[in-house]
Amino acid sequence: MKNIAILGSTGSIGRNTLDVVRHFPGKFKITALAAHSNIEVLFKQIKEFHPVFVCVADKEAGISLKRRVGSKIKLFTGESGLGQIVKDKGIDKVVLAISGADALRPLLSAIDSGKEVALANKEALVIAGSIVMSRAFKKKAKIIPIDSEQSAIWQCLAGEDKNALRVIHLTASGGPLRELDKNRLKSISLKEVMKHPRWKMGKKISVDSATLMNKGLEVLEAMYLFGVGPEKIKVVIHPEAIIHSMVEFMDGTIIAQLSATDMRIPIQYALSYPERLANKLARVDFYKLQRLSFQEPDLKRFPCLRLAYQAAYDGGTAPCVLNAANEVCVEEFLRGGINFISLPGIIERVLERHKNTGKPGINDIYHADGWARQETKGLIRRMG
Amino acid sequence: MKNIAILGSTGSIGRNTLDVVRHFPGKFKITALAAHSNIEVLFKQIKEFHPVFVCVADKEAGISLKRRVGSKIKLFTGESGLGQIVKDKGIDKVVLAISGADALRPLLSAIDSGKEVALANKEALVIAGSIVMSRAFKKKAKIIPIDSEQSAIWQCLAGEDKNALRVIHLTASGGPLRELDKNRLKSISLKEVMKHPRWKMGKKISVDSATLMNKGLEVLEAMYLFGVGPEKIKVVIHPEAIIHSMVEFMDGTIIAQLSATDMRIPIQYALSYPERLANKLARVDFYKLQRLSFQEPDLKRFPCLRLAYQAAYDGGTAPCVLNAANEVCVEEFLRGGINFISLPGIIERVLERHKNTGKPGINDIYHADGWARQETKGLIRRMG
Repeated sequence: MKNIAILGSTGSIGRNTLDVVRHFPGKFKITALAAHSNIEVLFKQIKEFHPVFVCVADKEAGISLKRRVGSKIKLFTGESGLGQIVKDKGIDKVVLAISGADALRPLLSAIDSGKEVALANKEALVIAGSIVMSRAFKKKAKIIPIDSEQSAIWQCLAGEDKNALRVIHLTASGGPLRELDKNRLKSISLKEVMKHPRWKMGKKISVDSATLMNKGLEVLEAMYLFGVGPEKIKVVIHPEAIIHSMVEFMDGTIIAQLSATDMRIPIQYALSYPERLANKLARVDFYKLQRLSFQEPDLKRFPCLRLAYQAAYDGGTAPCVLNAANEVCVEEFLRGGINFISLPGIIERVLERHKNTGKPGINDIYHADGWARQETKGLIRRMG
Repeated sequence: MKNIAILGSTGSIGRNTLDVVRHFPGKFKITALAAHSNIEVLFKQIKEFHPVFVCVADKEAGISLKRRVGSKIKLFTGESGLGQIVKDKGIDKVVLAISGADALRPLLSAIDSGKEVALANKEALVIAGSIVMSRAFKKKAKIIPIDSEQSAIWQCLAGEDKNALRVIHLTASGGPLRELDKNRLKSISLKEVMKHPRWKMGKKISVDSATLMNKGLEVLEAMYLFGVGPEKIKVVIHPEAIIHSMVEFMDGTIIAQLSATDMRIPIQYALSYPERLANKLARVDFYKLQRLSFQEPDLKRFPCLRLAYQAAYDGGTAPCVLNAANEVCVEEFLRGGINFISLPGIIERVLERHKNTGKPGINDIYHADGWARQETKGLIRRMG
């Protein structure tokens, strides 16, 4: 029996994780649940899974929940509660399903207490990949990716000599706007952006999929997670989203990981690893599937991917700045403050103004993150 | 430095193996070469690779070669020479590239002397799979497949729990006649049969590819090699022959192995395993490739695949009889004695007349093999 904490239990990954747990009552037990502010959903989850610890990041929402759950449950409020929860000895595995840079602190706490981390969050690795990975190495904390692409790469490397890796083929569905020309992109609506053809996801990641920034963040993530340079990561558009990524070795052999497009498959693997558990989720039927297709990504129509590669080559605090500028831009786009097509230009300008810090410490990261957010907001205001 | 014996060095696999060895002079040394009767090619190979041992199965050809190579080389003649060579302590790895049932005796000799075997031959496993695998297990002799499909499955299973295997997706290019209808198959010429769209191969295997019996033999081979029942092996037509096979696990995850269609890639891996060596062989370019396609095999047009499954379910000596009847039929077809379309009918009739022996010993195998060959020849004679 594995005791599991889910940070971000009310989001898309969190809810899918609970659905996996629901199907294996003899394998997994929910020990802790944490959410930002959606206490309605959280309350239902508490009723069903009976966690020992609960944390609500938003203090007001936390106080309001406290009245409803009574004293049996240890309830923490505020961001600091996350750090306290993950350290508890009763927890074997931490599912980190918070989106954005906020995940960095609880991730480092989990690592420091030597927990196995099932990582769905991209941003913590993107902004502080070197720090996270070297800390995990020191503390012997295993980081198992949940993201379907990183999980695929992780699985393709199983039993292989990592030194024989030649290139990672990171697949991308191409997002909902893959086939639109540049003029159409200018007038694209929020609704069209949110219609991902393959995956049902949260708002932030849906926008990132449409700009291909999501794939750019994955390039950065893979770079740190698997210890390779950006020159060894190649993005290939694969609209069917059946191959979740591939690893090519020096001898010309490629190992690929495929599955139906259901997040619960990589989530389940991250929970059960190294075991594989039988389930009733959708399967790939090759007789019906008929074909898998591949294309080169168009960096002219989707410059965010180019910017991410640039940040990957620059290293230092550049990935952190890219991510912060992108987070601000996406929020602004979701609020209707800026057009879809203006995102990459803003991010590029912030990157240009940034003074890069090589081999950054954690404070350099937070500083660059704060600077980039201010800078991006300022730019948007001045555009306004 | 690995000392290598190649049995069947003048055939397609043998020559490709020598080409791999040629590119890694610091890694592999040819200690023994054996061929059936093509002493012209063998003589050139001796000049280039300087083996310690040479064997020619055809005695007359052997005597003729002896005069040319002088006394420096230990030259054996006759089938028994193969058995002697593989036992030599100076040999680390035996590449078994003889086609047909003749490979069984030298394979067992290699296993008995605890050698690592790189196995290109299908028939030995098909006819005596249980005996071969249990003997290899006892003697701790590793059998590494060379055949691209079996090599793919082997690689997909690396680092995985074999008990979690749900189904093997054995890919098949579909052969040169994939798109022809039944009426066209009736009048098909030898030349059309020999034109394989993806691989350059020997005559026997080219015919087997056209009838899909090759895939049927691979089903049987995989069954023994990976210890699974026929219900766990599913054939999928994949004309591009880029995915060389896939393994699906109980959790819905599929691991696939891909590479350019060049036999030297799996040969090199079988030689260098567990290492992967950088080479300059063709690579898959996904941007140019554009698509991979899949179809269900048509058992009505290609009944040989159905017969192989039937033999797999029947077990015992049925796979041996299937193989022997097929070998006789292919020889007869290559000689122009029978039509392409009559092969499966003959094999089916031989299988119907066969009295199956469960859990066969090696003598039961040789007996069934002999009986099936006689029976098939008789049937063909009576057909006139």
